[in-house]
Amino acid sequence: MSHPHPELGTPPPLAEGALRVTPLGGLGEIGRNMTVFEYGGKLLIVDCGVLFPEPEQPGVDLILPDFTSIRDRYDDVVAVVLTHGHEDHIGAVPYLLKERADIPLIGSQLTLALIEAKLAEHRIRPYTLEVKEGQTERIGPFDCSFLAVNHSIPDALAVVIKTGAGTVLHTGDFKMDQLPLDGRLTDLAGVSKLGEAGLDLVLVDSTNAEVPGFVASEREIMPALERAFASAERRLIVASFASHVHRIQQVLDCAVKYKRKVAFIGRSMVRNMGVARDLGYLKVPDGLVIDAKVIEELPPEQVVLVCTGSQGEPMAALSRMASRDHQIRIVENDTVVLASSLIPGNESAVYRVINGLSRWGANVVHKGNAKVHVSGHASAGELLYFYNLAKPRNVMPVHGEWRHLRANADLAVLTGVPRERTVLAEDGVAVDLADGVARIAGKVPCGYVYVDGASVGDITEASLKDRRILGDEGFISVFAVVDADTGKVTGTLQVQSRGAGIDDEQLTAVVPKIEEALADAAAEGVGDAYQLQQIIRRVVGKWVNDSFRRRPMILPVIIEV
Amino acid sequence: MSHPHPELGTPPPLAEGALRVTPLGGLGEIGRNMTVFEYGGKLLIVDCGVLFPEPEQPGVDLILPDFTSIRDRYDDVVAVVLTHGHEDHIGAVPYLLKERADIPLIGSQLTLALIEAKLAEHRIRPYTLEVKEGQTERIGPFDCSFLAVNHSIPDALAVVIKTGAGTVLHTGDFKMDQLPLDGRLTDLAGVSKLGEAGLDLVLVDSTNAEVPGFVASEREIMPALERAFASAERRLIVASFASHVHRIQQVLDCAVKYKRKVAFIGRSMVRNMGVARDLGYLKVPDGLVIDAKVIEELPPEQVVLVCTGSQGEPMAALSRMASRDHQIRIVENDTVVLASSLIPGNESAVYRVINGLSRWGANVVHKGNAKVHVSGHASAGELLYFYNLAKPRNVMPVHGEWRHLRANADLAVLTGVPRERTVLAEDGVAVDLADGVARIAGKVPCGYVYVDGASVGDITEASLKDRRILGDEGFISVFAVVDADTGKVTGTLQVQSRGAGIDDEQLTAVVPKIEEALADAAAEGVGDAYQLQQIIRRVVGKWVNDSFRRRPMILPVIIEV
Repeated sequence: MSHPHPELGTPPPLAEGALRVTPLGGLGEIGRNMTVFEYGGKLLIVDCGVLFPEPEQPGVDLILPDFTSIRDRYDDVVAVVLTHGHEDHIGAVPYLLKERADIPLIGSQLTLALIEAKLAEHRIRPYTLEVKEGQTERIGPFDCSFLAVNHSIPDALAVVIKTGAGTVLHTGDFKMDQLPLDGRLTDLAGVSKLGEAGLDLVLVDSTNAEVPGFVASEREIMPALERAFASAERRLIVASFASHVHRIQQVLDCAVKYKRKVAFIGRSMVRNMGVARDLGYLKVPDGLVIDAKVIEELPPEQVVLVCTGSQGEPMAALSRMASRDHQIRIVENDTVVLASSLIPGNESAVYRVINGLSRWGANVVHKGNAKVHVSGHASAGELLYFYNLAKPRNVMPVHGEWRHLRANADLAVLTGVPRERTVLAEDGVAVDLADGVARIAGKVPCGYVYVDGASVGDITEASLKDRRILGDEGFISVFAVVDADTGKVTGTLQVQSRGAGIDDEQLTAVVPKIEEALADAAAEGVGDAYQLQQIIRRVVGKWVNDSFRRRPMILPVIIEV
Repeated sequence: MSHPHPELGTPPPLAEGALRVTPLGGLGEIGRNMTVFEYGGKLLIVDCGVLFPEPEQPGVDLILPDFTSIRDRYDDVVAVVLTHGHEDHIGAVPYLLKERADIPLIGSQLTLALIEAKLAEHRIRPYTLEVKEGQTERIGPFDCSFLAVNHSIPDALAVVIKTGAGTVLHTGDFKMDQLPLDGRLTDLAGVSKLGEAGLDLVLVDSTNAEVPGFVASEREIMPALERAFASAERRLIVASFASHVHRIQQVLDCAVKYKRKVAFIGRSMVRNMGVARDLGYLKVPDGLVIDAKVIEELPPEQVVLVCTGSQGEPMAALSRMASRDHQIRIVENDTVVLASSLIPGNESAVYRVINGLSRWGANVVHKGNAKVHVSGHASAGELLYFYNLAKPRNVMPVHGEWRHLRANADLAVLTGVPRERTVLAEDGVAVDLADGVARIAGKVPCGYVYVDGASVGDITEASLKDRRILGDEGFISVFAVVDADTGKVTGTLQVQSRGAGIDDEQLTAVVPKIEEALADAAAEGVGDAYQLQQIIRRVVGKWVNDSFRRRPMILPVIIEV
């Protein structure tokens, strides 16, 4: 098994006839999926998504794939293939197109409609090529064809990339619902044909590789949804992802059956459901969906609100309802259904929402107490089916943290793939396919690129470290006005603290200590601002540790007058 | 159903012959369990535990129950009954005993041994009364008896409190393993007898009330443990809670069978296993457990390390191994077993540890991929058994967030308890049992009490709000030295920023804007320090929002000379 080492060097120039695969996101994490395929001097990109920050990345809005390694080669990019319309696959496209606006986007009808709606908000009109399963397109030196895959959004595709180096299949995100609501199965017959013909490398979704067995069919959540509708005494509020067309279709079907009207709440929900309805992915009987303002006038037992916020996002409608900071006031016997996954990292936020809703008397139905969610990603059982049909010569697990990537490689090995033909890479690790063998070739720079407010990349790891210290411990700042000639303090020292749990009165105790230390320094002729800062840092640090056992950031400022 | 309202007032003086039950922690949260029973002018406390902070409580070490409402009445406290030795039930005892050192502690042998070991580290020797299941003790006006309950620590007790107001049962934490390793069953016969005689009120563990079905027996994890031992090629590292004697007993039994030696790693693990062994709760064959230093000299395939850190605690051995910051270096084919729960809120930290270990090549076995953990709390199925035997007249769910409390009340109702005889309270809500009916009487002050460093209670909600802003956005501070007479700036403005993602060069752009605004102010005769601060705040706030779309904390300091 190939395994990356921290000391991996820059990959050598790509050998003639070889294909290089470099993930710039999505390996070692769940999100910001992006893979660069290089062949014959050209680059084909598959997906370009965002990652949502964790608590250790405070104040960050989004995390992008790191484009550094392709920055000088945007002109070599022949296209971006988007496998489906989820944020972790399309969310960074606006940022890539700001680098070169005319990179063509290739994807299915729904995928392109969703990215175009998103780009319109960024005032970008992209070049696009719509493709369908079964279709083949020559894109630069890459022969691409597309397979239908089933996922938690309609119209998802896997992509097959043929070059002189061999045939590669990138699954995108997929699962294998054998009774999908739209009848569009993952094309195992297609995978099987590729396997028979010889698949040199597969890049396979690892998200659920640790989960034994099989994902239940999407339609198996209908009984739990029906139960919620049948027993709801008052208003029903259903939260889900704004792109989960089939989930919301089932909610609409229930609403028809139980004679309720539906309103969509939240910008992305309204936008995406509009797109899905216009293109025929969402079937909406006339008069079922009405405006959020109009629905308020109906009696509560005739109402369904479909909203976002199922991940506990603090600004979303659902969180605000839970904290009574929304015009929709939750009352006793409202029913709230979280028909959604619980993405790792969001647990505290989601439970806070559930507890808030429960506190106001709502009956909250969620995946913890009812079968109102099935995953969008193949579990171990499904992956075994996949490997047995694909018979790949080399396997590169993608879309996962280390635990998922490793579990996925183990599954491939169980089906007969030699351990040494599984490649465990991470972001930035270049894997070369040459002579039918995939091997790690080196590593390109690949860090986190933070979006915070209006800027991309201004927030560095150092800023985040400062934020973590400030957030955990607060700070104490000391302002001393010093006579430039004598080095003596003139006027009063100002000491200020925020977030350190030390009040103004307690702070006064440190002032004489600083004054004494600075007087000693002046007496010894130490007048250099940097040295005075160090003295202040030492005195205040010792005092705060001795008195409080805490370690706030200490910021001395010397102003010379 | 009684339901607390934000506008609940102070409870009236307790009526003659009534019992007041006031939870000071554990209702609306999982942790810091503490309930005060008042009767005939005396107070009996059940449990006194700590809560571990969430990311929204940055920098906090521990959270204590709020003693405010009993502060004037410590002399009325007749005892603290400790139901078992977990931190969320005993962890705040040292802080309570600092208020009044001679409050007697009542508990089982192991519980008292664990709290005494803990108190010894705080240099406190408590008064104690050891009790056993079946025993009855008169404690002030409270007739207390004790029932054996099964939990994830040996020797746990439920407590029955009889007064003139009736009979109350507090379950403590419990489940109903029907084949417990130590043969000590939850005493359902005892519950049944109480039910027959008439139980006026039960306080019932809600932790798993949302989980359908039954908790598997502790012994059912043995096959997964054995599989880990049988397949481990090299060193085995098992992480678990330092108090889970039966879990660790099974690890020791496996070690004997697979001819490995064991070392305990981590202060609390070494301390607690010493206590459990001395008292006979942990059976350790001679020569099996050896010193951590000695075990390093054995070949890896003969080694088991039992350590803490199963919740991803950053300073624990396991986290440090995962980030290669520990003398034990994880290498390819080491096996790590997390034989532990995943406490909500800890997911990100635990997965970070699992990913780190996986990255270095360890095979990580955890509850997500193997049956290496069973919960310590009764699931819905068990709670139904309990209610059907206890036949309580009134039910007050305890030990849970709102979602758990509500689910627990729903179960009681399913067994025939009238909805209006279930009391949903939260911390600080006083519930009076009078004339056989439990009703909410009012609310006493009950906030979070934060331990941070050496101090208790210095950290306020305001400090935490500052920390959250500083942690998310950083700050910009501006120091202006102003002539006290003219209000004009003398010398250079100093602008400093940390954590805002704005570098020193970018910061220089705001200086002329501030200078201009201050000059305008001086020209208009505005020289008051507060007004100048407001001007700086406004100018810098607008600049940082326009330029970066961020909202750091802005801290102007005016120094008048």
